[in-house]
Amino acid sequence: MERRAALEEKPATTCQSKDWFQYQLKHQDKTTAARRGQFNTPHGAVQTPAFMPVGTQGTVKGLEIGMVRQTGAEMILGNTYHLSLRPGDDIVAELGGLHKFMGWDGPILTDSGGFQIFSLAQMRKITEKEAIFQSHIDGRKIHLSPERSIEIQENLGSDIAMVLDHVVELPNKPQVIREAMDRSIRWAQRCQAAAARNDQAQFAIVQGGLDEKLRVECAERLGALNFPGYAIGGLSVGEPPPEMYRILDATCPALPADKPRYLMGVGRPEDLLEGIRRGVDLFDCVMPTRNGRNALAFTDEGTVRLRNAKYQRDPAPLDPKSVPQVAGLSRAYLRHLFMAKEMLGPILLTLHNVAYYQRLMREARQVIEEDRFEAFYEEKMRGWASGG
Amino acid sequence: MERRAALEEKPATTCQSKDWFQYQLKHQDKTTAARRGQFNTPHGAVQTPAFMPVGTQGTVKGLEIGMVRQTGAEMILGNTYHLSLRPGDDIVAELGGLHKFMGWDGPILTDSGGFQIFSLAQMRKITEKEAIFQSHIDGRKIHLSPERSIEIQENLGSDIAMVLDHVVELPNKPQVIREAMDRSIRWAQRCQAAAARNDQAQFAIVQGGLDEKLRVECAERLGALNFPGYAIGGLSVGEPPPEMYRILDATCPALPADKPRYLMGVGRPEDLLEGIRRGVDLFDCVMPTRNGRNALAFTDEGTVRLRNAKYQRDPAPLDPKSVPQVAGLSRAYLRHLFMAKEMLGPILLTLHNVAYYQRLMREARQVIEEDRFEAFYEEKMRGWASGG
Repeated sequence: MERRAALEEKPATTCQSKDWFQYQLKHQDKTTAARRGQFNTPHGAVQTPAFMPVGTQGTVKGLEIGMVRQTGAEMILGNTYHLSLRPGDDIVAELGGLHKFMGWDGPILTDSGGFQIFSLAQMRKITEKEAIFQSHIDGRKIHLSPERSIEIQENLGSDIAMVLDHVVELPNKPQVIREAMDRSIRWAQRCQAAAARNDQAQFAIVQGGLDEKLRVECAERLGALNFPGYAIGGLSVGEPPPEMYRILDATCPALPADKPRYLMGVGRPEDLLEGIRRGVDLFDCVMPTRNGRNALAFTDEGTVRLRNAKYQRDPAPLDPKSVPQVAGLSRAYLRHLFMAKEMLGPILLTLHNVAYYQRLMREARQVIEEDRFEAFYEEKMRGWASGG
Repeated sequence: MERRAALEEKPATTCQSKDWFQYQLKHQDKTTAARRGQFNTPHGAVQTPAFMPVGTQGTVKGLEIGMVRQTGAEMILGNTYHLSLRPGDDIVAELGGLHKFMGWDGPILTDSGGFQIFSLAQMRKITEKEAIFQSHIDGRKIHLSPERSIEIQENLGSDIAMVLDHVVELPNKPQVIREAMDRSIRWAQRCQAAAARNDQAQFAIVQGGLDEKLRVECAERLGALNFPGYAIGGLSVGEPPPEMYRILDATCPALPADKPRYLMGVGRPEDLLEGIRRGVDLFDCVMPTRNGRNALAFTDEGTVRLRNAKYQRDPAPLDPKSVPQVAGLSRAYLRHLFMAKEMLGPILLTLHNVAYYQRLMREARQVIEEDRFEAFYEEKMRGWASGG
């Protein structure tokens, strides 16, 4: 395939080195590791801690792009694996890149495909050179090397690209975990060497399973490679939450303090606050969108399962603090939409959930600035445990 | 079931007689029967000719209610049959009526259930007293009399209720068509007698199959009953369009000139203009919404089937005159959304189509006022025939 068939025009804010990225620590919370920061991209700044809604196939499922903007999301995530299979990264490039393709002029981060090879692809085989697997759509054989992952992400034209990593199932043999970690580091270096666009920053991904020593080693070795940002990958794959928190406790301090930290694929509102208090700056997860489609709403009083018969005649709003499109509607109406299999149910609950996550991040940023994160964390945790 | 368990509070504009309805003929086109008018409802005025998007189950499929408003739709349609089965008209009444339930503060017209008994219900039996049929949802036996249809519609609290009519398949024996027509007139009288709300106007429905004499007789007999408005029903059920136009040619002149005329369940943009030029004021149809969900878009150059492979790399917008949410996107992106089975495809195309229908109606109202309807009609017909 021709490399970057038709790259989008470089936006005016593009710089010729990656100095534009500039992570800035604005305030360090006094009692926890929570931190308030910012980084820049060619499509605007991102205030951290931040949560990225997932736009797997060039759309945040169920939301018109103006609704995504309305939730307050500053940055969204796109999927290299999905977009390269359909419509094809060459087509996205030809049409001006992912921003133009989907009508989103804010920052975009693309993942590398590493996680989808692990979770979706059939008959996968990992060699030192590349991953070889069958497409989950039509079964055709795909080769994905670190270089090809970066080529795809440069074709998509995202602001932040993730390096290709080797994700393994947990639990697993120590030797398998170490080998995957070592390979992930070598692949990160190959991604770094393959970068051709100056308007795209790369984040490395720390692997190492549930072994704190491996995680620290991986963080330090990647740290020495001077990436603009660092992700913690291979978590939230079925392990109990306390195991994840333990790994965060070990890994975050081992990462460069002057770079943003991104906890991939996480998670519940509880997990976000647990991550923030350990020094995580960036998150993504399908939870608000996927749960929204399944009639589960997040509120300060915990989750609300709107299919529950007890809401059949409930005139109360789902959440008076929700977006205007949802705040004026009764739980009975929202339940009706799901019972009647109407698209508007998933649309409204996705909108509510994504907005809920964004509000949580806004509040977190505020309380960190005011050194009140710990009290905020405890209040939120109490509310969520109280039952919706 | 308790009658109108908890009616919504009467809006301030409610009058104690139905004089509030006041159809006003604003301008009669010089060269065709097209007419520009207005009627009033407790939830605002409706400018005619008008097209009502269909909100079968308390939602215009795929559209957040602000999007419905954005299209310029002034009045929407709700379905007595569907809403009485799910969530139940008693529940809608208890929650404050259909307007409040779905968050729509504009006019609502509800159909009577007559057409759904014909098209959806299983094992239906029509007696002089009522229709008896099985629910298409759970098979339970339902009795729907003219009185019960009005009770449901008063529980829903629509601004305009339709009388229960007896719809028959076409073609059919003359005797069957006449009997159904005679019954429809008797049922219309029973609906009129059953009305208990002064903030709801009833429209009668002309039946009579494809027999002009029966249609004229039905129009005249119903005309004598002095309903606030008149519908033409039992059309667009599979007959060739010219047959429908022939029936409109015969029926419209037989209806009272000082009442609005509503052609039920019609239709394609062509059919709307054919109706308007024969003196029809009001339309509803699932076509813009259903076709939108199936990747078919209406434009001034005809229909566009977005699944077509020729749009795979097409950077052109679907329609530069579309709503802002759609006008900036490429046909390639819209096609991708449908190929990837993303909800956003149906959402955006439904929005486009409903907005297209509303724009067509706005333009029609404008050209009637300026006595230019005929030229407008010919220009639109040429464009649609040119192929998208």
